[in-house]
Amino acid sequence: MPDSEDTENTENTENSEEKATPRGFVVHTAPVGLADDGRDDFTVLASTVPAQVSAVFTRSRFAGPSVLLSRDAVADGRARGVVVLARNANVATGREGETNAREVRESVARTLGVPEGELLIASTGVIGRQYPMPQIREHLKSLSWPFPEGGFDRAARAIMTTDTRSKEVRLRCGDATLVGIAKGVGMIEPDMATLLTFFATDARLDPAEQDRIFRRVMDRTFNAVSIDTDTSTSDTAVLFANGLAGDVDPVAFESVLYEAALALVKDIASDGEGASKLIEVQVTGARDTAQAKRVGKTVVNSPLVKTAVHGSDPNWGRVAMAIGKCSDDTDIDQDAVTIRFGEVEVYPPRADADRDEDALRAAVAEHLQGDEVVIGIDLGIADEAFTVYGCDLTEGYVRLNSEYTT
Amino acid sequence: MPDSEDTENTENTENSEEKATPRGFVVHTAPVGLADDGRDDFTVLASTVPAQVSAVFTRSRFAGPSVLLSRDAVADGRARGVVVLARNANVATGREGETNAREVRESVARTLGVPEGELLIASTGVIGRQYPMPQIREHLKSLSWPFPEGGFDRAARAIMTTDTRSKEVRLRCGDATLVGIAKGVGMIEPDMATLLTFFATDARLDPAEQDRIFRRVMDRTFNAVSIDTDTSTSDTAVLFANGLAGDVDPVAFESVLYEAALALVKDIASDGEGASKLIEVQVTGARDTAQAKRVGKTVVNSPLVKTAVHGSDPNWGRVAMAIGKCSDDTDIDQDAVTIRFGEVEVYPPRADADRDEDALRAAVAEHLQGDEVVIGIDLGIADEAFTVYGCDLTEGYVRLNSEYTT
Repeated sequence: MPDSEDTENTENTENSEEKATPRGFVVHTAPVGLADDGRDDFTVLASTVPAQVSAVFTRSRFAGPSVLLSRDAVADGRARGVVVLARNANVATGREGETNAREVRESVARTLGVPEGELLIASTGVIGRQYPMPQIREHLKSLSWPFPEGGFDRAARAIMTTDTRSKEVRLRCGDATLVGIAKGVGMIEPDMATLLTFFATDARLDPAEQDRIFRRVMDRTFNAVSIDTDTSTSDTAVLFANGLAGDVDPVAFESVLYEAALALVKDIASDGEGASKLIEVQVTGARDTAQAKRVGKTVVNSPLVKTAVHGSDPNWGRVAMAIGKCSDDTDIDQDAVTIRFGEVEVYPPRADADRDEDALRAAVAEHLQGDEVVIGIDLGIADEAFTVYGCDLTEGYVRLNSEYTT
Repeated sequence: MPDSEDTENTENTENSEEKATPRGFVVHTAPVGLADDGRDDFTVLASTVPAQVSAVFTRSRFAGPSVLLSRDAVADGRARGVVVLARNANVATGREGETNAREVRESVARTLGVPEGELLIASTGVIGRQYPMPQIREHLKSLSWPFPEGGFDRAARAIMTTDTRSKEVRLRCGDATLVGIAKGVGMIEPDMATLLTFFATDARLDPAEQDRIFRRVMDRTFNAVSIDTDTSTSDTAVLFANGLAGDVDPVAFESVLYEAALALVKDIASDGEGASKLIEVQVTGARDTAQAKRVGKTVVNSPLVKTAVHGSDPNWGRVAMAIGKCSDDTDIDQDAVTIRFGEVEVYPPRADADRDEDALRAAVAEHLQGDEVVIGIDLGIADEAFTVYGCDLTEGYVRLNSEYTT
């Protein structure tokens, strides 16, 4: 595998901030016919030199062979890249599906001239269908190295399913560049949301530190988003750091990675299936962050909260209801809780009833008209906090997911 | 409180099976103006003699004063009846709400000539609004004892919110009669689903045994239903047994109570907000019933499963996805699981691929056309089983719950 990054990508990194690209990463995309619309659906993202890898995967008991193979691939902390197939999840496909995943990965690894164990594979789309192997084999035969330079934008588009737009972020950290791409929340045939996220950087980090940073950031971003409570069988988030830009300050890098991940997460939530609004639930005053996250997720996942936000209905009682569902949190005391929409405190109830109540509802309704709805909940227990992200529930979500097109 | 049941209700119990009414229960219903449509919204269901009571309540941390007062009332296992206010939950209403609940209950108890601690109170509807006390007080002044005989059908209607029909069941058990009424899943102004369920019987049972029977049956019926994962702040289920028909065989009574509760639960699920279909998820082969219930609830609550059922889409992969969400159940092995729709086994995948796959999808799609969809899941771990009930997710649900009418 030739070491071609320096000549190829320097130009990009010296362009504008938007076009900044980490050194030593190349991208191949192509349409191999996983769906019938001629769109790119096959992607290989690779580093031209070995990269240090951090990754988190779905915990689903129905995780597909892609996740299982990738989990093994990252075990030693080193990887060259990832193969992504969009529009077919290759999940619940039995031995045949596993054999196919191995064959695809092995073939790409041969082209790249790297051991197959250094490649991850990710797949997203309909569950329970086999890959169309004849078409895929045809394409793999034509695959030739080296890949063209740059191309993260093409990759961001090629990994999409029913996303209405591609999600991409590029940030600088000292001399290094970080690019992140993500897909979610989609289907091409009625199927489930799947999150695939890939970060690539030419920063060099201490391996253990890189991993700690990555997990901390994922916990506060990708593990803090929920569109519809349905966990994909294929969720995968990966950071490749190939070190070509040299050392970076880890604290600075963590804040850049957080900023990048949060931007992708907000982009994903507001592009949730059928979604029209981003919902951010800020929980404070909790016993610990786990409790704050539990309460936040319960609220952001409540269909009645989501539909109220969709209808701009200032029905804050539903937030109280949703908090109440955390029945194992016996330290939650309704007399200590406060609830606000934006800056408007709606609970506890005020003594001076009727007149104020109407003004209150009008103020809440106004906040709900916006594209970003912030629900603040203080539990009044201690000082821990967590923020979660989601979206409203619309007739469009139901329509998208109940149409019969298989 | 005069003992008027024998003369009043004997006639009903000797009529047809449908009209059977337990001895010694009387019902008052009236419109007191909790909503503006003139419908009955105020109900008192009482036994003319002390009854042995079993009850379960919401575990919500935002439970309202009605639930708190009722929990106290049943602590000694004896009660006279229940006051029900429909279309206002009296939840998240602070001290004022608590004072109002006490005042209503005290006034009714005075009319009945019983200690207030022997009356339960239940309330359902919009959260965060105070009762319209002037109208309620006006009505309470005019309340006169004794109430007219019979009237469970009136009660079943008066406790409704957005239910499209009343839910009522009457069964015989030896010389005794059991009647059950329930409401759910509704709102009059956009608000949450609430389950209120009242059973009345003239059977006599050992107190401890009655309680065990009641809890066992509730676990397999009312605790096995989910419309939209949102737990009400007001859920209440109560069995009053006044013993006027004498002893019954407890085994026979349990099976009658189960039959009655299951009928109400299926009625509730198929009348879920916007629902068009009942979904029954039968989980077998589980390690224990808790695991079977967890898997069943995860599947029946999955928005992607619910929308697929709504669209009659034979996309069984979503059921695999939903099972996979039980990630803490590490003994769930996708190679041991089987999934069926009705009688059609869809997973594991068959070796003889394409042709069969189309026939399979057609057979599943046909089952999905019906009003009752049965999803069978065998986990292949051990022999425990549990069945849960729910409904599809429709555009009607979103419409109902996002319309701004407050």
